[in-house]
Amino acid sequence: MAVGDSIFPAMGPIPGVRLGSAMAGIKKPGRRDLVVIEVAPGARVSGTFTRNAFCAAPVHVARQHLAAGDAVRYLVINTGNANAGTGEIGMRDAHATCQALAELAEVSADQVLPFSTGVIGEPLPMEQLLGGLPEALDQLDDGGDAWALAAEGILTTDTRTKGATRQVTLKQGTVTLNGIAKGSGMIRPDMATMLGFVATDAAIESERLDALLREGVKRSFNSITVDSDTSTNDACMLIATGQGAALADDDDERIFRQALDEVLVELAQAIIRDGEGATKFVTLNVSGALSVEEAREVAFTVAHSPLVKTALYASDANWGRILAAVGRARVEDFDVDRVTIDLGDVRLVENGGRAEGYSEDAGSAVMAAEEITIAIDLGRGDAAARVWTSDLSHDYVSINADYRS
Amino acid sequence: MAVGDSIFPAMGPIPGVRLGSAMAGIKKPGRRDLVVIEVAPGARVSGTFTRNAFCAAPVHVARQHLAAGDAVRYLVINTGNANAGTGEIGMRDAHATCQALAELAEVSADQVLPFSTGVIGEPLPMEQLLGGLPEALDQLDDGGDAWALAAEGILTTDTRTKGATRQVTLKQGTVTLNGIAKGSGMIRPDMATMLGFVATDAAIESERLDALLREGVKRSFNSITVDSDTSTNDACMLIATGQGAALADDDDERIFRQALDEVLVELAQAIIRDGEGATKFVTLNVSGALSVEEAREVAFTVAHSPLVKTALYASDANWGRILAAVGRARVEDFDVDRVTIDLGDVRLVENGGRAEGYSEDAGSAVMAAEEITIAIDLGRGDAAARVWTSDLSHDYVSINADYRS
Repeated sequence: MAVGDSIFPAMGPIPGVRLGSAMAGIKKPGRRDLVVIEVAPGARVSGTFTRNAFCAAPVHVARQHLAAGDAVRYLVINTGNANAGTGEIGMRDAHATCQALAELAEVSADQVLPFSTGVIGEPLPMEQLLGGLPEALDQLDDGGDAWALAAEGILTTDTRTKGATRQVTLKQGTVTLNGIAKGSGMIRPDMATMLGFVATDAAIESERLDALLREGVKRSFNSITVDSDTSTNDACMLIATGQGAALADDDDERIFRQALDEVLVELAQAIIRDGEGATKFVTLNVSGALSVEEAREVAFTVAHSPLVKTALYASDANWGRILAAVGRARVEDFDVDRVTIDLGDVRLVENGGRAEGYSEDAGSAVMAAEEITIAIDLGRGDAAARVWTSDLSHDYVSINADYRS
Repeated sequence: MAVGDSIFPAMGPIPGVRLGSAMAGIKKPGRRDLVVIEVAPGARVSGTFTRNAFCAAPVHVARQHLAAGDAVRYLVINTGNANAGTGEIGMRDAHATCQALAELAEVSADQVLPFSTGVIGEPLPMEQLLGGLPEALDQLDDGGDAWALAAEGILTTDTRTKGATRQVTLKQGTVTLNGIAKGSGMIRPDMATMLGFVATDAAIESERLDALLREGVKRSFNSITVDSDTSTNDACMLIATGQGAALADDDDERIFRQALDEVLVELAQAIIRDGEGATKFVTLNVSGALSVEEAREVAFTVAHSPLVKTALYASDANWGRILAAVGRARVEDFDVDRVTIDLGDVRLVENGGRAEGYSEDAGSAVMAAEEITIAIDLGRGDAAARVWTSDLSHDYVSINADYRS
């Protein structure tokens, strides 16, 4: 299941970026499962990664290679196997993958960043993976189809490809941003995301690129949750090839940041719309908090509540469950009499209880929609946060109980 | 669904405690839904309550009346309606309930403690509740049947009554402990429990009684979770009528505490075995932590992981999900290479990955059982914690999506 329609957008090329993919037979035959992204010399690459302490071997290696400072030339991504929880063998396999691609492409191994997603704890099928590399390199192309095929080649339990694109005009010319992402379950990114790859031809120095990514990810991938389970393999990469216009001044940076944030938010929302078993797309707006952290604590407590999520699935305006979840959030000296909770345009809670004038009919009408907004004002400060989540359905249980994923 | 067999134990009387119940028609007719517990003059009563900021009106009133210091004489419990999220009307109704019972029993209103459980956010049906009080008082009895009927009269989505009993011999004679509890969903007690009522004829002064309850609850009701949702109505009461032997010395206290802990743990485990949709009873033993809080953080992170819970439901030894949940727990400077994870007697994880010699067959054999123990050693200290939980099944979704509860 998934919420709403989804059409992969038409993407223009990003000068300096080519993508190729292959069916390597990593998990099963006939499935696009290997993607190579080539970046031209001179490009800047920035990345954020999972905070899960059991992070995967490719995350370790990608971090090392990024820190080594040699210009990144290739990203290699496989689906079907996360190469996580694989100990020393996993590290060896991740290094071997970089080495093999480096030899084929005549660069050095630390100019290659590896990414994996799929089942945890099984060794990478190296024969298949290495066997698929030549084809993926052969297919390298900068056309829109290459982005669509790459978006397909990184999916796991996703039911849809996820892409977003923007063009903005800066002082020195028009630049393009293209992004693709994957993710459906084990989604509660922590200072990172599931796999997301965004590229632009804009010219941006490394420090500024890092800051733009860090800030953008906070408001997008780090503001979504399907099931509270932070993955071992989350990574979001931002590539700036520098073959287009530079950010000439603060205005340009503002315009570019806006477009980048839109791309990141669109990809993050696409993950929620395609959340495992999702039948609802839910926006949680928490305001009136003492700090952004406090607002996020309340938003995520509600977003993770199995009772709220099953009520959303049932289209049941069971506001008592929302109230109970807000009440158990870790908030100091919490005066609940000042809290208001709105479901769409219907006031549910005020003065510590059900709002005067609330009717089940009004609440049920809002809950019947596929897209629902819950607004919670804590009445104690000016900080706010927004989080997106999905519901908890029979299909979520089936997807995660019936198959090893 | 529920895990294992359950037989309500034969309970002897507690001198100084009588219980009566009635079918008051609070939610539906023909359902035992109102319980009165009478405590003889001279008894001590200790209580712990939910930390949910949106705590229910009866919780506010019971706390006030306990603090007022007048000897408690009656506890009145209704199911079918939680009287939570009901604002000022809820407070008025909770006070009116105490007042009505006080008049019938010729005591003062602050000698009555009110408790409610059931749906959140609807006004208490006062006509039914008050109408049932005379019958409940008529039925007051100290026989074992009275305990069984009271255990039935406090249930909500529970499928079984829950009771535990012990007799211990102290220096001055033998004392009895009887306990009943309810709870099945919205179970993640925080410094309290769902509804639990434990009584003894032992003579124990107030401060010691408070300490015994606080300590006992930490290791029992505060160490269980079904769905991470802390209720608005949790309460656990401990009554010592003082009509039996006193705790004469430290030996007596140790013997009594042991029996009390056993009663509390048995009731807490009964709630998990009857967790909404539960097909598994899971014990999480976390050791090698720097502090008990750290051990509990890891245990609850695993216990709340929807991916771990669906794997348990599927009897799938998907240890990668356990590893990922451990890795996302909020632990500072976490070196996962020192972590070991065991499923029953099968080592799953060591040295940062799958244990050498692990086989799916061995893991699957352990997972097939109804009762499963997962042991996680963090390898960084001496602190430990134990938490009990259930799995996440289709029935959990059905119970919470198909009915308003």
